Amino acid sequence: MIVPPPNLRIDGARLWQSLMAMAAIGATPKGGVCRLALSDEDRAARDRFVGWCRDAGLAVRVDRLGNIFARRAGRDAALPPVVIGSHLDTQPTGGKFDGAYGVLAAFEVVRTLDDAGIATAAPIEVVVWTNEEGSRFAPACVGSGVYAGAFDADDSLSRADRDGKTLGAELARIGYAGPAPMGGAVGAYVEAHIEQGPILEAEGKTIGIVTGAQGIRWYDVTLEGQAAHAGTTPMDRRRDAIQGAAMLIAAVDAIALEQAPSAVATVGALSVAPNSRNTIAGSVTLTVDLRHPDAPVLAAMDRAFRARAAAIAKARRLDARIVDVWDFPPPEFDRGCVAAVRAAAARAGFSHRDIVSGAGHDACYMARIAPTAMVFVPCADGISHNEIEAATPADLAAGCDVLLGAVLALAGEVRG
Amino acid sequence: MIVPPPNLRIDGARLWQSLMAMAAIGATPKGGVCRLALSDEDRAARDRFVGWCRDAGLAVRVDRLGNIFARRAGRDAALPPVVIGSHLDTQPTGGKFDGAYGVLAAFEVVRTLDDAGIATAAPIEVVVWTNEEGSRFAPACVGSGVYAGAFDADDSLSRADRDGKTLGAELARIGYAGPAPMGGAVGAYVEAHIEQGPILEAEGKTIGIVTGAQGIRWYDVTLEGQAAHAGTTPMDRRRDAIQGAAMLIAAVDAIALEQAPSAVATVGALSVAPNSRNTIAGSVTLTVDLRHPDAPVLAAMDRAFRARAAAIAKARRLDARIVDVWDFPPPEFDRGCVAAVRAAAARAGFSHRDIVSGAGHDACYMARIAPTAMVFVPCADGISHNEIEAATPADLAAGCDVLLGAVLALAGEVRG
Repeated sequence: MIVPPPNLRIDGARLWQSLMAMAAIGATPKGGVCRLALSDEDRAARDRFVGWCRDAGLAVRVDRLGNIFARRAGRDAALPPVVIGSHLDTQPTGGKFDGAYGVLAAFEVVRTLDDAGIATAAPIEVVVWTNEEGSRFAPACVGSGVYAGAFDADDSLSRADRDGKTLGAELARIGYAGPAPMGGAVGAYVEAHIEQGPILEAEGKTIGIVTGAQGIRWYDVTLEGQAAHAGTTPMDRRRDAIQGAAMLIAAVDAIALEQAPSAVATVGALSVAPNSRNTIAGSVTLTVDLRHPDAPVLAAMDRAFRARAAAIAKARRLDARIVDVWDFPPPEFDRGCVAAVRAAAARAGFSHRDIVSGAGHDACYMARIAPTAMVFVPCADGISHNEIEAATPADLAAGCDVLLGAVLALAGEVRG
Repeated sequence: MIVPPPNLRIDGARLWQSLMAMAAIGATPKGGVCRLALSDEDRAARDRFVGWCRDAGLAVRVDRLGNIFARRAGRDAALPPVVIGSHLDTQPTGGKFDGAYGVLAAFEVVRTLDDAGIATAAPIEVVVWTNEEGSRFAPACVGSGVYAGAFDADDSLSRADRDGKTLGAELARIGYAGPAPMGGAVGAYVEAHIEQGPILEAEGKTIGIVTGAQGIRWYDVTLEGQAAHAGTTPMDRRRDAIQGAAMLIAAVDAIALEQAPSAVATVGALSVAPNSRNTIAGSVTLTVDLRHPDAPVLAAMDRAFRARAAAIAKARRLDARIVDVWDFPPPEFDRGCVAAVRAAAARAGFSHRDIVSGAGHDACYMARIAPTAMVFVPCADGISHNEIEAATPADLAAGCDVLLGAVLALAGEVRG
């Protein structure tokens, strides 16, 4: 393993400037970002990123899922690239750093190598994955999932948002349905990201060495009762879908608490029909998100959820329909790749700890086809998927320095 | 009191035809009607009604709230009119009979009198009240409420729907912001309506003699927590608005059951922000509808609701905001007017029983300024506010016959 010069550091101010320039696209009044996958804002962010990459002399290609790869050549064209990056789409009321940090930290690594005149043996590619958030098109991490063979490309392109617009049509509309072949060998994949949880901040650590992630199961649940007049329908004759939904929401909470402290479970989206104040709800659709780092525990949570949904439907005389949207087994990252991140953090002198990701990331799919690792940095109060999401310039720069060190180790710095 | 010829009957087939012709406006694929207040469909329904009235030689006027009055002259112009009618707006997934029956039964009464060449001492006015349902603009029964002095006209015209469009602007858009003066003396008000509940059908009665209605309280509740990542935020750090909402929905159910059997309580509409499957809900807004025929019990339900909302907010670390949308005390109808309906049902030979309305109606406001009564007919399975709402032609004709008899008694048939 070739050790980089110990004093090589990324430019933290330049990284911060690029983050703020990107955060201006889809900026919300409350200081966050709304840049839904394949929206006009997503297109503007992609255009800005591609412009920067072309200015930096990188070769840009786009595949049919809209994944963008910006390539810095290596000395040995036969070597598979070290791929670094993340995503540019956000939650409806998202923050400035979730995703954008991983992309722009990767770009900052390339700029730093250019400035220092450092070549690597393997090529380096900065990647932007399509539709990581999954809030417009389900499931999440579609671009990396197709790349890694976890999802079918045609099926993914046919997924529709709430307005019936498909991922494929929207990609074409914004000009990012590209011609590049899908997939290809990857030497290593490293993604930098804010932690999106409270652990690093609470323990005063600068760097999280991510060893793997939680397993995730997503469901869409529809409860069908009968719409009826709110004033004239006696309580004992009601088939009220919203009362069933309330019981199911409480059950989802209980399922997580029964597997404390590692389990989390969430109902994040819900809609009611006809949604009128003086009509009993005829139907409710809601989402369920269950997570645990151990596959057997996650399977037990899945069984508990199905059993309780059935019991609630029976008690409330409702019809319950459960659609499995995503089943994501807990991934483990590559020991060698994780070790490279750990060594880079130690060499740069940053406090660090191993950590399991609570969130799903594109890295979780890339781990299926390439040695993969992630670098976490703290975020304020552990809050993400919120407009107040925040991280310090110093922590963001530290994570980028660790990414730089890991990339040099994995791509092979070429001396002279 | 002048007794009408015992064999005078309305034309049930013509009534049914006019109901079906009206139900075609805003017809839904499932056999119901979507004709939200002041929508293009509401305009089309109003236009059709006004056209029929003009064809029948009635004098039509529209006041600034969009209430339509179609007047059949009486022999004594100094007498205040007997007003009969209901509303033409519907729930988002409403039925063919809620409201439209009262309007078209009233119109059928006028046609029957015309055909028989019967004059009355007092004028008869067929009324269409604006925005009875309250599902587009809150509160409900706005047109009759302003007429009766319960609501301020300017305030009511400024009420906005979810898209920010005001009732006043929408009235002007559809051409029903009229020049007629608001209010005026009413000799008696009688409204025919489907029961919207199961009692008449269960007991095999054809006619309900409505003696009064339940009191109603409406609220808008907002629960504010903190949006955060569903995967990375530990359960014990969450401020999950949807979990608070679930507890409040269950509490609303319990409040009704504690006052069984007369109380009903409903959460009919709910919306979540940001409403994304992998983000903990930052805020939830929901509606609450509490009803009871006795004012002191309704006040106790109000107190219980506020106390539980506060306790739930505290337990879940949420901010709860309750807006009082409507406070409608239980109305009692006029004994003489109710007696006229009861006598008409008995004379016509229909089985009948006294009944308290579970729903609010325009008659409830009119009862504040005029002797008021209502005629109920059964509906299938007691279901209303649903596209499958149904009633038989025979029952609808029977209710219309009773309305005719009551009108003749109240307006005073003129012989010779």
